[in-house]
Amino acid sequence: MAHNLLQGKKGIIFGALDANSIAWKIAERCVEQGAQIVLTNAPIAMRMGEIKKLAEACNAPIIPADVTSNDDINNLITKSMEHFGGKIDFILHSVGMSMNIRKGRNYMDLDYDFNHKTNDISATSLHRLLQTCYKLDALNEWGSVVALTYIAAQRVFPDYGEMADAKSLLESIARSFGYHYGKKNKVRVNTISQSPTRTTAGSGVKGFDGFISYAEKMSPLGNATADQCADYAVTLFSDLTKMVTMQNLFHDGGFSFTGVSAEVIEQMEK
Amino acid sequence: MAHNLLQGKKGIIFGALDANSIAWKIAERCVEQGAQIVLTNAPIAMRMGEIKKLAEACNAPIIPADVTSNDDINNLITKSMEHFGGKIDFILHSVGMSMNIRKGRNYMDLDYDFNHKTNDISATSLHRLLQTCYKLDALNEWGSVVALTYIAAQRVFPDYGEMADAKSLLESIARSFGYHYGKKNKVRVNTISQSPTRTTAGSGVKGFDGFISYAEKMSPLGNATADQCADYAVTLFSDLTKMVTMQNLFHDGGFSFTGVSAEVIEQMEK
Amino acid sequence: MAHNLLQGKKGIIFGALDANSIAWKIAERCVEQGAQIVLTNAPIAMRMGEIKKLAEACNAPIIPADVTSNDDINNLITKSMEHFGGKIDFILHSVGMSMNIRKGRNYMDLDYDFNHKTNDISATSLHRLLQTCYKLDALNEWGSVVALTYIAAQRVFPDYGEMADAKSLLESIARSFGYHYGKKNKVRVNTISQSPTRTTAGSGVKGFDGFISYAEKMSPLGNATADQCADYAVTLFSDLTKMVTMQNLFHDGGFSFTGVSAEVIEQMEK
Amino acid sequence: MAHNLLQGKKGIIFGALDANSIAWKIAERCVEQGAQIVLTNAPIAMRMGEIKKLAEACNAPIIPADVTSNDDINNLITKSMEHFGGKIDFILHSVGMSMNIRKGRNYMDLDYDFNHKTNDISATSLHRLLQTCYKLDALNEWGSVVALTYIAAQRVFPDYGEMADAKSLLESIARSFGYHYGKKNKVRVNTISQSPTRTTAGSGVKGFDGFISYAEKMSPLGNATADQCADYAVTLFSDLTKMVTMQNLFHDGGFSFTGVSAEVIEQMEK
Repeated sequence: MAHNLLQGKKGIIFGALDANSIAWKIAERCVEQGAQIVLTNAPIAMRMGEIKKLAEACNAPIIPADVTSNDDINNLITKSMEHFGGKIDFILHSVGMSMNIRKGRNYMDLDYDFNHKTNDISATSLHRLLQTCYKLDALNEWGSVVALTYIAAQRVFPDYGEMADAKSLLESIARSFGYHYGKKNKVRVNTISQSPTRTTAGSGVKGFDGFISYAEKMSPLGNATADQCADYAVTLFSDLTKMVTMQNLFHDGGFSFTGVSAEVIEQMEK
Repeated sequence: MAHNLLQGKKGIIFGALDANSIAWKIAERCVEQGAQIVLTNAPIAMRMGEIKKLAEACNAPIIPADVTSNDDINNLITKSMEHFGGKIDFILHSVGMSMNIRKGRNYMDLDYDFNHKTNDISATSLHRLLQTCYKLDALNEWGSVVALTYIAAQRVFPDYGEMADAKSLLESIARSFGYHYGKKNKVRVNTISQSPTRTTAGSGVKGFDGFISYAEKMSPLGNATADQCADYAVTLFSDLTKMVTMQNLFHDGGFSFTGVSAEVIEQMEK
Repeated sequence: MAHNLLQGKKGIIFGALDANSIAWKIAERCVEQGAQIVLTNAPIAMRMGEIKKLAEACNAPIIPADVTSNDDINNLITKSMEHFGGKIDFILHSVGMSMNIRKGRNYMDLDYDFNHKTNDISATSLHRLLQTCYKLDALNEWGSVVALTYIAAQRVFPDYGEMADAKSLLESIARSFGYHYGKKNKVRVNTISQSPTRTTAGSGVKGFDGFISYAEKMSPLGNATADQCADYAVTLFSDLTKMVTMQNLFHDGGFSFTGVSAEVIEQMEK
Repeated sequence: MAHNLLQGKKGIIFGALDANSIAWKIAERCVEQGAQIVLTNAPIAMRMGEIKKLAEACNAPIIPADVTSNDDINNLITKSMEHFGGKIDFILHSVGMSMNIRKGRNYMDLDYDFNHKTNDISATSLHRLLQTCYKLDALNEWGSVVALTYIAAQRVFPDYGEMADAKSLLESIARSFGYHYGKKNKVRVNTISQSPTRTTAGSGVKGFDGFISYAEKMSPLGNATADQCADYAVTLFSDLTKMVTMQNLFHDGGFSFTGVSAEVIEQMEK
């Protein structure tokens, strides 16, 4: 039941690390729906990852880029346009890393150099990407840029640490740049706020299992999977959602609008 | 470029009055995407409207129903299941009417019988519809129900009057029932908060033209059209958005997240 | 440490049933802070309640009023102005009742006559009250009206039933009327979204104990008490918050912005 | 009508530059309400400002601090505790500066070193301040920390540039740290989202006059003044609002919940 929703479209996918990555699923789905893609990841992530398999399956070049480097992003966009022989229609930003969490520092004991790096990688990178595209006039009219985020940007999940603040920054950048890029080229910019997902990256967060199970119990439809996120991302890259922009879109089985579920109350009474 | 996103799906469309109606466009789009539909409207609206043309074009039966009558809604759902030979996959609720506005009474001079009727038609009707489906077990697993709403439910637009309150009530019902129907049958319930749209119904609101032009100036992508709303509704009825539920989804070219635009500031300085 | 924050102000307090009522505490606190008050409640609630004790302690007349009756509300406002010898400065609306819950009907089995009555008592009553004041020009400039609400208006708490929808309607009315009354007389209208509180009224809700304990575990500062709510209400009636209007203000120890707490995660792992 | 709401309380006020500063008004009001205070500002701002006059009027020491320096903040907190002979009850964070706007660079042409500095000064500084207090155990139980922010953190105001993103980051930090500090010492952390205010700092923003007039037309009560903000801040530092935490509190005459006003529509029709 291929719908060809992205027939003829060209996109860049950030952050496919391995087959558990949401970005990996999105890359596959975009190609199934008729898109051509370029894959990119940090040089170091590429050494660890299995991205080459994905590249073969998707018939996509890999262009490494450090998202904190203006030059790398400039090179990525320029090379992608050369590869496609024209402008770009969609981009997935799935990039995030908490230096303080990685170094075992909690939220009341942040190192501010690490914190700056966390924000630079996880949030400012979206601005750098959009600014580069804007200056190079790299996106087609009605292009669509989607970044992945998490509800910790709205409410506190204590183990999520500084990443919550980085995601708030990311969502604000999506909103702000969405205004300007919308005015200029009808380009839309949105974030998807996805259920906690068992990815290789996510599994580093302390208390993640307890939290995934809580989220599952709280969501009337259960947690959204990476595959379902890929389906949803396709709709946002397609021409069917042209007027959706500057938004943070929850994709979480109802978690965000559930105050408490019967299952959680039951568990509380144990 | 038919995507067949709704191939094999069966749905009910409320509120198609004439070719300017959002519901009219949604009905057409659903059929284009492979769905079978039933059309419904209030008996009185049907006399005025041109719904028969749409019914012919869509090869759809018309089953009139007064949304404030339990019996009528029960009849509509029962007959629709008979017609489809099975359960229903999606429903569009596009129903709203302000008795006080129609009678020329402003928000500080409401008649409370009229107000009750406004709420009953515009909001409680969604509950009645969902409760009837729930009791008759009329919706397939992963069914999708969408109601149309407006941002006046979040912020005050003075001429929108009591309808703002009715829309808040409607959105709350979508959220509340979305929880319970999600738990029972994975059914999702959402509202689309659409740009002001020049429909035959909308044109009755005082100051509507000034307001449409303000919204156009405030939205980085301009106001969303009825056609674009139809595209978006199709994604919500499709299997690509299974984990989106209990939400109010803005479809407004960026209006909702724009505090002010350059154009509006310019106009202010005149 | 009497601050005399309400020195010289005159107010009406709805909904003081007994010493557990939030309204009871607010009445006491307003008088401590220098206000004169009128107490009101439904005729039937007055027979059950101990409001006369409060009236004596506060040196306040009691003027019964059925909030669903235009005449009763008109009488209340007129008599209050006569009693005060002038206009009114503040009003507390603490009124709510779910007929369906009282009759044991769950959210998927509502009786719509009951539902209408629930909305009329719990939400439309605020409009009726404001419209009556507006027409009688009964409120002083910079007057302040506060209604009590609950976070179920934003997120689903399944046992809260139809009351969630009524509270959404109530909050929308506060917002809508706040615009018009602000323009006319600088009157502000807000709602306080209070922690679940063990009142005589609240104790009727199914699963209330499990829920109170969940809310306590989720709130970094614990649940807010009725006494603390009274303190907060005083600030909103005072001249220190003149520019706060059309808002829903959470008073809940941090519940509303906590996604999950360490304590809840721990309980989940049991 | 001194209410002595802050009798016996000790606080630190950041950001009083001159008599137009919101922080200046808040400092004065806190002292009127019975508090003892310490004033602080960036060394460079102190040379330009008239803070010494305020210090004399308030009988307050001035302890300069660069908010981007851990050592300076550590020194400020340590010296303040020595001065007070004990712990601190409240802190006002009124600090913000956009390097890119100052250098004339628009949002689509950011310099990322400047952007980092903007975030460091305007947002991370709140984390640094709270982390330092947390480690030094410098705040009394039920202490209250308030930071000033702006609605551009929720909706786009194009001329506000990168500052919008910095304010989103700031609000997230308030929320995140509010959770942890609430758990530990019942300390509350909130932000006030104030109307645009004609301060010496604010006047640097392009199109500020057009915008102030738009906000005035959009707010049913008009724009909130610095004096009114000082009144409101006092309530948040007082014991009357102990259960308010982790929130962004609008203080804007109704701007945030007004979709459009009659005045703006009129202007649109010109």
